[in-house]
Amino acid sequence: MALIVQKYGGTSVGTPERIKHVAQRVARYVAQGHKLVVVVSAMSGETNRLIALAKEVAANPAPRELDVMVSTGEQVSIALVSMALMQLGLKARSYTGAQVRILTDSAYTKARILNIDQGNIRADLDAGFVVVVAGFQGIDEGGNITTLGRGGSDTTGVALAAALGADECQIYTDVDGVYTTDPRIVPDARRLKTITFEEMLEMASLGSKVLQIRSVEFAGKYRVRLRVLSSFEEDTEGTLITFEDDANMEKAVISGIACNRDEAKITLLGVPDRPGIAYQILGPIGDANIDVDMIVQNVSHDGLTDFSFTVHRNDYLKAMEILKAVDAHVKSRGMVGDDKIAKVSVVGVGMRSHAGIASTAFRALAEEGINIQMISTSEIKISIVIDEKYTELAVRVLHKVFGLEQPV
Amino acid sequence: MALIVQKYGGTSVGTPERIKHVAQRVARYVAQGHKLVVVVSAMSGETNRLIALAKEVAANPAPRELDVMVSTGEQVSIALVSMALMQLGLKARSYTGAQVRILTDSAYTKARILNIDQGNIRADLDAGFVVVVAGFQGIDEGGNITTLGRGGSDTTGVALAAALGADECQIYTDVDGVYTTDPRIVPDARRLKTITFEEMLEMASLGSKVLQIRSVEFAGKYRVRLRVLSSFEEDTEGTLITFEDDANMEKAVISGIACNRDEAKITLLGVPDRPGIAYQILGPIGDANIDVDMIVQNVSHDGLTDFSFTVHRNDYLKAMEILKAVDAHVKSRGMVGDDKIAKVSVVGVGMRSHAGIASTAFRALAEEGINIQMISTSEIKISIVIDEKYTELAVRVLHKVFGLEQPV
Repeated sequence: MALIVQKYGGTSVGTPERIKHVAQRVARYVAQGHKLVVVVSAMSGETNRLIALAKEVAANPAPRELDVMVSTGEQVSIALVSMALMQLGLKARSYTGAQVRILTDSAYTKARILNIDQGNIRADLDAGFVVVVAGFQGIDEGGNITTLGRGGSDTTGVALAAALGADECQIYTDVDGVYTTDPRIVPDARRLKTITFEEMLEMASLGSKVLQIRSVEFAGKYRVRLRVLSSFEEDTEGTLITFEDDANMEKAVISGIACNRDEAKITLLGVPDRPGIAYQILGPIGDANIDVDMIVQNVSHDGLTDFSFTVHRNDYLKAMEILKAVDAHVKSRGMVGDDKIAKVSVVGVGMRSHAGIASTAFRALAEEGINIQMISTSEIKISIVIDEKYTELAVRVLHKVFGLEQPV
Repeated sequence: MALIVQKYGGTSVGTPERIKHVAQRVARYVAQGHKLVVVVSAMSGETNRLIALAKEVAANPAPRELDVMVSTGEQVSIALVSMALMQLGLKARSYTGAQVRILTDSAYTKARILNIDQGNIRADLDAGFVVVVAGFQGIDEGGNITTLGRGGSDTTGVALAAALGADECQIYTDVDGVYTTDPRIVPDARRLKTITFEEMLEMASLGSKVLQIRSVEFAGKYRVRLRVLSSFEEDTEGTLITFEDDANMEKAVISGIACNRDEAKITLLGVPDRPGIAYQILGPIGDANIDVDMIVQNVSHDGLTDFSFTVHRNDYLKAMEILKAVDAHVKSRGMVGDDKIAKVSVVGVGMRSHAGIASTAFRALAEEGINIQMISTSEIKISIVIDEKYTELAVRVLHKVFGLEQPV
């Protein structure tokens, strides 16, 4: 008998029929003797509908009121899921974030969880109830309703699992796990039985959008056993997110190939190589709330160096604009940009202890005539910027050269 | 400078445009130096949408969960109204029933208010905020969300006005006040500048559905100055609900003519006139949760009497069924029923001190050939049951004979 937290996303509770399916799955777990806490998102489309309604009333809706409004989406879901469970003869009780008392800071629309009261939930679980909790929302010290930002229901699930010391936190979504790469690009991409938290963080931030990244960090920090599963397919065990020191871990060197086509590259050529130059360039970019991803600067020649970085494509023109002004002080030899690039990344904790991963990757790309424009590396990741048109080819080549289509 | 509670119903906040109108009216009151508490209902149609959704998931939704769900309707409204107010440059803050802490009993879907915390609202008002409160909802001792039942937003408004000692509670609706009768029947029906609480109670229960009856009782009990106004028309002062002992009261004998076509009449003929017989007849009706409105029993002859009462038409067949079983014990001479009746009522506190009201009414009906089937009276009301087909004629005749089309 285990204590399991199950989190269901918006598509999993998107219709009355889907909600009944969720209730049936929960009932099967209860029948096996498990205690269940169910965390749900708003029905798919509901959050967007509410935000659109708000914008009809006010061009810039006050964040506090937006949270009051948007949090109703999950409140409807918890009631519906509880009703569906009771319809199957189970005891069930719903809780809003405020009713649990999921205490957060007061950063409306992007609050962070500070503490979770366990009292009511534990009492209900002991009394045989399935407890249904609204994801994505909490309450601050002043009793104001807050939301955790998009995808925050995952974080609610993981935080509840951590607070309750649950045996497992299961994230049900519309994919059945984490794959070695995007199956739309590589048809024989393989579902990973396990992936480490660090790899998952790199994969998530690189575009394999299975789990909200903050929830993964949270699970890693509090050592919550996290599993990603499909709410549409039965009988798959999904992907378990593990700790590197776990026994019986898959020992693949490389876990997956991620790719991202949302970025643009900007280079300042022949920048004087003096202290403070990086800040002079990137300070104004940060001030404009533009996130910078890769930053590459190589050794200098004759006191000059090239300085490159990537930003989201939506910010490309704005960033170029800002840099023109900056360049008046920096006095570079010129500025070039390209928004037709792709970033392909090789991810794996095994990389740490294996030499030659980078050279294997570079050779494989070279053999296909794919030119490498930028490289940056971390302990468990190599990211390579290439011409956008080679994206699929690069992913297929790298997937093959590391043998990812074969079970370990 | 006054403290005013304004309550806006579902049609008044039914669209983003309507919500902006509400904000503009509130802003005008604030500009005049008043402090405002605004109580809002769910956008029109929203509550029904949510209930329909619940029924798709569970044939008999659990009442606790239905309240969790339905209460989101007002929560959306308070956020939207607050946003709209801020858009006009006002300071505004929304409160759910739980956030105010409108404490109720635990009778889900029909809870009653026990207490209202004033702390937060008073502090916000003092700090220059317009306070926007969700109608229709509260929270019980256990922290469960409750709703007050249909129309309960009026009660929230009145209860808040009572708790805060507001100078006036204004109920904005889609009619601009209380009329001497239904203007669709009598085109020169006149809006009453004032009506007493007792008259209002009689009018409301008789089908002039302007205000939820419980809110009127509440206002009378706590002596809240209550005004009904239109949220669609500016520049009318609506109808003020007064206390009989108020100075400057309109001194009309009769205030209005109400009518009701929702009832059916049942008569047991030749019932033995012995103690306990009324209970024997009506006990089983009450046990079946059928509300009885009029009850008429006249003097007996030869130990036998006729016993008549009215029920809602929807309950007519069920009530007849029950009475057939009852009649086995009662042994009446027969049972007759009619669901094609109307009840027309003459209402007015002035009736108390004026003889001849009843005879004036009866003569007016007789002159039009309208037969009277049942009569019952209270201190401020005479109700007459007639054939349904004469409804409009009877209302017009009575409206005219009491001179209600003329200003007092």
